[in-house]
Amino acid sequence: MRTIAALLSLAVAPLASRADEGMWTFNGFPRAQVERQFGVKVTDAWLDHVRLSSVRLAQGCSGSFVSPDGLVMTNHHCVETCLDQLSTAEKNLIASGFLARTAAEEARCPVLEVNQLVRIADVTERMLKATAGLEGQRFKDAQKAETSRIENECQTSPALRCNVVSLWHGGRYDLYEYRRYQDVRVVFAPEFTIAFFGGDPDNFMFPRYDLDASFLRVYEDGKPLRTKDYLRWSKVGPKANDLVFVSGNPGGTDRQLTVAELEYQRDVAIPESIARYSEIRGGLVEFQNRGPEQKRISQSLLFSIENSLKVLKGERAALVDKAFFAKKVAAEDAFRRKLAEDPKGAAALQAFAAIQGAEDLYRGVRFEVAYVMGSAGFSTEYFAFARTLLRGAEERPKANEVRLEEFQEAKLPAVTQKLFSPAPIYDEFEVFKLTGSLTRMREMLGPDHPFVRKVLGAESPAELAKRLVGGTKLRDVALRRKLWEGGKAAVDASDDPMIAFARLVDPDSRAVRKTYEDEIESVNRKAAETIAAARFAVEGTSSYPDATFTLRLSYGTVKGWREGRKEIPPFTTIGGAFERHTGRDPFALPRSWLDAKPRLRLDTPFNFVATTDIVGGNSGSPVVGKDGEVVGLVFDGNIWSLGGSYGFDEALNRTVAVDTAAITEALSKVYGAERLLQELEAGARVPLATR
Amino acid sequence: MRTIAALLSLAVAPLASRADEGMWTFNGFPRAQVERQFGVKVTDAWLDHVRLSSVRLAQGCSGSFVSPDGLVMTNHHCVETCLDQLSTAEKNLIASGFLARTAAEEARCPVLEVNQLVRIADVTERMLKATAGLEGQRFKDAQKAETSRIENECQTSPALRCNVVSLWHGGRYDLYEYRRYQDVRVVFAPEFTIAFFGGDPDNFMFPRYDLDASFLRVYEDGKPLRTKDYLRWSKVGPKANDLVFVSGNPGGTDRQLTVAELEYQRDVAIPESIARYSEIRGGLVEFQNRGPEQKRISQSLLFSIENSLKVLKGERAALVDKAFFAKKVAAEDAFRRKLAEDPKGAAALQAFAAIQGAEDLYRGVRFEVAYVMGSAGFSTEYFAFARTLLRGAEERPKANEVRLEEFQEAKLPAVTQKLFSPAPIYDEFEVFKLTGSLTRMREMLGPDHPFVRKVLGAESPAELAKRLVGGTKLRDVALRRKLWEGGKAAVDASDDPMIAFARLVDPDSRAVRKTYEDEIESVNRKAAETIAAARFAVEGTSSYPDATFTLRLSYGTVKGWREGRKEIPPFTTIGGAFERHTGRDPFALPRSWLDAKPRLRLDTPFNFVATTDIVGGNSGSPVVGKDGEVVGLVFDGNIWSLGGSYGFDEALNRTVAVDTAAITEALSKVYGAERLLQELEAGARVPLATR
Repeated sequence: MRTIAALLSLAVAPLASRADEGMWTFNGFPRAQVERQFGVKVTDAWLDHVRLSSVRLAQGCSGSFVSPDGLVMTNHHCVETCLDQLSTAEKNLIASGFLARTAAEEARCPVLEVNQLVRIADVTERMLKATAGLEGQRFKDAQKAETSRIENECQTSPALRCNVVSLWHGGRYDLYEYRRYQDVRVVFAPEFTIAFFGGDPDNFMFPRYDLDASFLRVYEDGKPLRTKDYLRWSKVGPKANDLVFVSGNPGGTDRQLTVAELEYQRDVAIPESIARYSEIRGGLVEFQNRGPEQKRISQSLLFSIENSLKVLKGERAALVDKAFFAKKVAAEDAFRRKLAEDPKGAAALQAFAAIQGAEDLYRGVRFEVAYVMGSAGFSTEYFAFARTLLRGAEERPKANEVRLEEFQEAKLPAVTQKLFSPAPIYDEFEVFKLTGSLTRMREMLGPDHPFVRKVLGAESPAELAKRLVGGTKLRDVALRRKLWEGGKAAVDASDDPMIAFARLVDPDSRAVRKTYEDEIESVNRKAAETIAAARFAVEGTSSYPDATFTLRLSYGTVKGWREGRKEIPPFTTIGGAFERHTGRDPFALPRSWLDAKPRLRLDTPFNFVATTDIVGGNSGSPVVGKDGEVVGLVFDGNIWSLGGSYGFDEALNRTVAVDTAAITEALSKVYGAERLLQELEAGARVPLATR
Repeated sequence: MRTIAALLSLAVAPLASRADEGMWTFNGFPRAQVERQFGVKVTDAWLDHVRLSSVRLAQGCSGSFVSPDGLVMTNHHCVETCLDQLSTAEKNLIASGFLARTAAEEARCPVLEVNQLVRIADVTERMLKATAGLEGQRFKDAQKAETSRIENECQTSPALRCNVVSLWHGGRYDLYEYRRYQDVRVVFAPEFTIAFFGGDPDNFMFPRYDLDASFLRVYEDGKPLRTKDYLRWSKVGPKANDLVFVSGNPGGTDRQLTVAELEYQRDVAIPESIARYSEIRGGLVEFQNRGPEQKRISQSLLFSIENSLKVLKGERAALVDKAFFAKKVAAEDAFRRKLAEDPKGAAALQAFAAIQGAEDLYRGVRFEVAYVMGSAGFSTEYFAFARTLLRGAEERPKANEVRLEEFQEAKLPAVTQKLFSPAPIYDEFEVFKLTGSLTRMREMLGPDHPFVRKVLGAESPAELAKRLVGGTKLRDVALRRKLWEGGKAAVDASDDPMIAFARLVDPDSRAVRKTYEDEIESVNRKAAETIAAARFAVEGTSSYPDATFTLRLSYGTVKGWREGRKEIPPFTTIGGAFERHTGRDPFALPRSWLDAKPRLRLDTPFNFVATTDIVGGNSGSPVVGKDGEVVGLVFDGNIWSLGGSYGFDEALNRTVAVDTAAITEALSKVYGAERLLQELEAGARVPLATR
């Protein structure tokens, strides 16, 4: 930690986080600050309890245990893929919703995995020692090897998932040990039309009227998991100005990016992604016009595309805001001036130049990275299977630490879960996606690019897509399992056209990957670490690290905001949903709600906003009151929260949550979900103190 | 011209145009510079002849007379709309191409209009006198009124089209008098697959192999027009390094925009347009999968969308190029410093601030401008008809100078030509476009915007689109004519749902338009004029004005360029097209070419590039040799030409043209178009000197 020590002398004032800003680690939570600001003592026991009550859905969401019997609350949109996979042409669970009236009716999700964070350990010293004095590829290889060693030592059972997490961009390394649960069953999900009432137009907006909630149950050995830690249920939800906490897994923020990187995001990466997603969206909307079945099978991709589009647009809006960007530039300039004044600051200054260099290099090969190295041109489940089988066969015989990262032992359970998933695949949709992505590949690389010529030959994208999807047998789970278990000999012997195709493109893909990892990624990572170390030397854990899809705790209050001259109140009511109902998609309440209207207390709070600092990945996070009870369910941020990737503005940035009062009211009056309600309320009667 | 006089004292060095840069007016062509550089004397007679041989297609292209009998050469893509309109489900002229073997077979295009520029007159003094001392709305009204007076005085017959053209952003006003021809018939067009060989992937690329050529004939009183001025045909095309001229109508450039405006383009306007077009494109591509008929009826819109997308991406690439943008900033800074040093520079400096203010205002209302004022949410021919009928009925009884601009007398012939066009309309496609645009309107304005609520009520975009398109009778040309001729009484009495809809939204549209024109557009225009005057005072006509879709003359040489380490030669050959043929769209040569291959001279030059400065609108322009013969047909620019909106880089920016040698070879060997060839070659035998 030479650089850090050297920089301790630099006189940079610590960047004090503004009130309510911050996605804090559980082992770095600013308890003193919260006590000062709210007069509330956050104890170790409280933190442990909330951490163990929180879960991560490995597919990219958060959730929480809300009963002693493994009941998990998360968003409807976090289980949509599962509902989709459990649906058939006759029984559309996304449209109709789902309620298990008995334990036997609880339906297992093909690929859902739930992780509970059981231990955090500081491994910084080991990691830095392993890479001391190394640069470039040797740095990267050593880092990968040590990461893999630490994870493997930890991973003593397949029921564990161990990840070395780089925090503060390498300022610190923590080992996160998770208990993993793969038998996850769906208990309740409402109809899509109320889960996502207002649809894409209302997404990231507030006021809002969504029951974006669902319940899962974790099973162990075929029985509901007994959970010591779970959040007690609040039937009444929070009040305005209440102090609340959000415990969840923000996916990623870029608050520490250099100006060169932010410019790349603003000028290249984000606009190009917006164009690509917009085009996919246009195609999907029209694909849905082919018929109701096509609409059903493509709905979840459309949702995810539209969601990404809004996120990207919000992020872009923040970056093209001149005042916002100027602040970023000024902060970096100030930091660099400090570095320049200190003879020991040279390494960090060189790191800025290195990042700029890697960025320029990346700009020139970004389409190769996406389309040759990555599989952006091969958007079909079948290609993913084929590549997994092909590479798995090649990588698994190698020593763990020299394998491609995604085939290291610690990652294999997730790989096989996806590979052996019985989720249905629809060839018409696969052809549609593959044709579109091949066409984009040809556009981005150009029709004369050697890789494009190799891939397409004389075929058109549509012809190739039809031939591959039509010819592959990989929809058969048993065959995939056989090929995986048969290893290299089995895969080599396969003449499946999709495997042959994966074989054809693999040398190019691996070659670009090597260049990318050695000359861009590792340079960038090393430089970011050097800069982060310089920053960390000054600020230490008084600041919070960028989000890394690991468990964090935010705090704030239930509070509206001012939009121009307009005051946005913090709560909506169930009655408001009925006022907004037009009967037309996406403003059509489901039949069940219309029928239940006379029974519903219309003044029940429905959704609310809070100043907690969240970002994508926090979906499904519990909103926790100071006594540890769950009062809300995070499902969105307002439009201003999207700039949260790059910075937090407390005046505008808001978390959007479903009030537990609304969930209670709906379960009781709309869905008659008595079994579920009793379970929630039984849990609620056990006070925290007794545990 | 107070401001100009005042600024004459400013010591700004004239910005010398770099060699080959410039879209020069015919009355401001830099003859001395060309003589110095190439030793070629450009005479008045030569300029008059080339000007009168050039035509503008009112729909947005250029062309040239190439025989004494009104034969016009332009691009295939400039007559695609006509071919589309002449096609039926049974006979797809875009796919099959078209050749009139006899005069009687020449088919009239429903809406094509050809304009020949017969006179240019300086009206600057009159225009400036009319607006002297005025600001804001009064400035705008006075300018509009004087423009209308001048145009009306000129427009002594419906066979004329008179336009006051603002050059150098108001530094000078010229009256352009055109002879207009509305009876235009198609003589020849090749198959789409060779006109646009390489399709969107190759668009704006080079090397290239496209026969993007077509021939039209202008008729007068039912007979071919006798044309005194036309370009002689060169069977052999140009040689490398030949001096060439391009005479055509560049649509618009933004080389004089302020940095504030460029930032708006870079950060807001262009990215938003790219996203919108990308989405439309995605939808269109999938719409085409509905069937071959749907593919046919939507092909021309898809082409135009893809073309716009490439243009926008090229423009964005120029603006996000840091070096390019820094140059723009530095140039403006230098100019502003000069202004600041001179006490008389204050007006122009204030104008910069005014533009920034108008820009900020516009940013906040841009979606209202597009969707409430404009018709971006109502993408259907029927709405355009309905709005024209409604507003025409209201505006035509008013005094000419107080009408909405588009209903002033001078503009009415173009309005009615479009309104009475017998071109077919396909309801399925209209529903598709209207549904998509209504959905976008709801997204951009938000579902709670009062205008959105007014437009949609409780209907979904798809329902409203189906109801309006299904219910309107406006596909009937006779009905449109009756309503137009019946005036206000007839339109008021109509209960056509599309007219009722246009009536519903008109007050809002007009209200936003008034605000926009008074508070944004006129402020901007006045300020741009003030800045331009300051610039013009220094540079005068030694520079060229931004493009305005009026006739310009560029010069340059036939020359390739260097792309990184690669030298791109200036010519391709017909043989190259066969090498590139894969048999799959868009790299499939038509049957006719495959059959003709043994007869074709494969070393015939096919396409070539030149350093002439062009931009969209120049499509169809003749490439003219120094003796006045036509040697090529402009149909594209290379990818670097797209930054031409903001500046010209001679090292990279290239015009892409079809060689007349290839046209001759194809007409003879592929199409057996003897009648047409004889006409071209007969014209070629008459030397310029004899005229």
